[in-house]
Amino acid sequence: MNPSRRDFLQKLTGATLGATALPFLANAEPDVEATPYAGPVLRVALLGLGSYATRVADAMKDCKMAKLVGAVSGTPSKLDDWSKKYDLDKKNLYSYQNFDSIKSNPDIDAVYVITPNLLHKEFVLRAAKAGKHAITEKPMAGTAAEAREMIAGCQRAGVRLMVGYRLHFEPHTREFIRLRESGELGKVMHVINSTGFRIGDPNQWRLKKNLAGGGSLMDIGIYSLNGARYATGEEPIWVTAQEMKTDPQKFPDGVDETITFQLGFPSGVIASCTSSYAFNAQDRFTLIGDKGFAELQPASGYGPTRGKTNKGPIEQPIVTHQTLQMDGMADLILNKKTISPPVDGEEGLRDMIVIDAIYEAVRTGKKVVIKS
Amino acid sequence: MNPSRRDFLQKLTGATLGATALPFLANAEPDVEATPYAGPVLRVALLGLGSYATRVADAMKDCKMAKLVGAVSGTPSKLDDWSKKYDLDKKNLYSYQNFDSIKSNPDIDAVYVITPNLLHKEFVLRAAKAGKHAITEKPMAGTAAEAREMIAGCQRAGVRLMVGYRLHFEPHTREFIRLRESGELGKVMHVINSTGFRIGDPNQWRLKKNLAGGGSLMDIGIYSLNGARYATGEEPIWVTAQEMKTDPQKFPDGVDETITFQLGFPSGVIASCTSSYAFNAQDRFTLIGDKGFAELQPASGYGPTRGKTNKGPIEQPIVTHQTLQMDGMADLILNKKTISPPVDGEEGLRDMIVIDAIYEAVRTGKKVVIKS
Repeated sequence: MNPSRRDFLQKLTGATLGATALPFLANAEPDVEATPYAGPVLRVALLGLGSYATRVADAMKDCKMAKLVGAVSGTPSKLDDWSKKYDLDKKNLYSYQNFDSIKSNPDIDAVYVITPNLLHKEFVLRAAKAGKHAITEKPMAGTAAEAREMIAGCQRAGVRLMVGYRLHFEPHTREFIRLRESGELGKVMHVINSTGFRIGDPNQWRLKKNLAGGGSLMDIGIYSLNGARYATGEEPIWVTAQEMKTDPQKFPDGVDETITFQLGFPSGVIASCTSSYAFNAQDRFTLIGDKGFAELQPASGYGPTRGKTNKGPIEQPIVTHQTLQMDGMADLILNKKTISPPVDGEEGLRDMIVIDAIYEAVRTGKKVVIKS
Repeated sequence: MNPSRRDFLQKLTGATLGATALPFLANAEPDVEATPYAGPVLRVALLGLGSYATRVADAMKDCKMAKLVGAVSGTPSKLDDWSKKYDLDKKNLYSYQNFDSIKSNPDIDAVYVITPNLLHKEFVLRAAKAGKHAITEKPMAGTAAEAREMIAGCQRAGVRLMVGYRLHFEPHTREFIRLRESGELGKVMHVINSTGFRIGDPNQWRLKKNLAGGGSLMDIGIYSLNGARYATGEEPIWVTAQEMKTDPQKFPDGVDETITFQLGFPSGVIASCTSSYAFNAQDRFTLIGDKGFAELQPASGYGPTRGKTNKGPIEQPIVTHQTLQMDGMADLILNKKTISPPVDGEEGLRDMIVIDAIYEAVRTGKKVVIKS
């Protein structure tokens, strides 16, 4: 293994995560004499078998602490396909109708909800009621109000709730955060984040208000938003926002095409952000301190994350994000740990509060103050 | 000469500038058999002998069509120094008191005003009254109202008025503009511009409202603004803006430290911009089209401009900006030409109108509509 990967693992199991060490990673080192991982494993069912679920399932093949064991879908043929492709026991396959009976299945620990955004709440609450830990894709929900219901439901059921913030486990991202936390960049002065892509098929659920709950901001702008929060280590106290809509047919009312938004933080720092479904927005996070800068680009894509600082490239191992995420989440759940920045329901809620405020700022044209 | 420089010269004298070909450039080619330039020369006096004037004077040593012949200053010892250093005839030296007598000096054609911003208007109007062409540093004035007075005064006097938009002559910048004009980047979708630096000496005129007329926006944010206008080829119809002020002692009332501003264009495109005196803001212009992007970084500094597109680096000659600017402006004046984007008073006024609107947006917290 190369030195940078070793360094990263040392960091992950050392100072960076503190008490949240991810022990499975040590076992991933091929050149270290280690017994194969023999600890507990989180047995996961994926719910909503679209293309992103397939990506997660494929990535989970390399997981040590998480294992794909089940699937939930509204399409019987998908369940058949998945059962074969991922060697899933038939008894671990569910339709949306009989999903609640998962409660009596002792072989599934957690359900990862990868449906359209506005279905997250229902399925997270049903998973929780069935006594299963719930992981949901981002955005956590359609609104902050929904997010709060989800948190309350999981608390009542005594299960963990997590949101698919895969970048919180990604090495370049963690180094970006470490650079800010360590003070190496000095005082944070400014953040410029831009995420976006040109969305294809106009008939997909992401462009339907009643399934997506919004447009680009929900899906891709959330990376710029979440990134601005971990770039500063602060929570925004106000937002302003502007919208561009050049294609109202493709992006009907309630589905944003492009939004620029600004986040004001208690320190006075402003994050200037772009979210778009109309163009490739460079996928760049820029964190400017008074002693240096750090920049990630690509910052949020599924492929290799890259970065640099005023001193040179950020050298970190290239990983499959979803493999690290699922092993990481399994560790957090099985070993009752937390990670910073968190990947829990509260973290998802914080983004939803800001998203609600951004949409309000677009609607009203006014600065929206966020109450803490 | 290298191919890229030859290409650039061909472009400058060909399609890019159209009727505004800069013939002096052909004579700058060392490997082309050419007679030395023997055409008319614009004889220039610099007014306000600070560090930027020194930079301009040094750059003018390499000019073909412009020649530094005089100086105007409030400090007699500076006039002595300049007279020796730049071999200026004593009769071409003026104080601010006797400056108006330049009218009877047949050996000076133009005056380049490089004073604090709020003195531009007075000296431009006095130069015009004396029958001299006027060049003023950017920002053209303190407000759009002042800029209009300057335009009117120069029109009345029958002299040209230009604003020191050196980047309009800079090869990478011209290529950036050409890429947009040619349609190679497709339809313009978004602009992200960020300019700023950490300003030093707290006692300098740039931090005094009564000399600078504002803060970072006047001095460095204007690059992001002007760059957004030539990146889109449109004039903004609305602005929104937000301010960060972390050091109210260094940046008193009316002197902005950091402003983020958004420009809305008729096409719907939004430019998201940062201006700062508090930090190095990456000095980057990003132009995103639906078929590709172009990016300049450094975009506005005095040193070499660099750039790239989705296809690779922007290969253009590295030039001393002020040499090209002064030769270019001499050509425009002597040969009664125009350039696009322009460097005239109207161009300066357009920026001042937007700057006025940005300050209003900061003050009111509201979107400010710009009337055309």
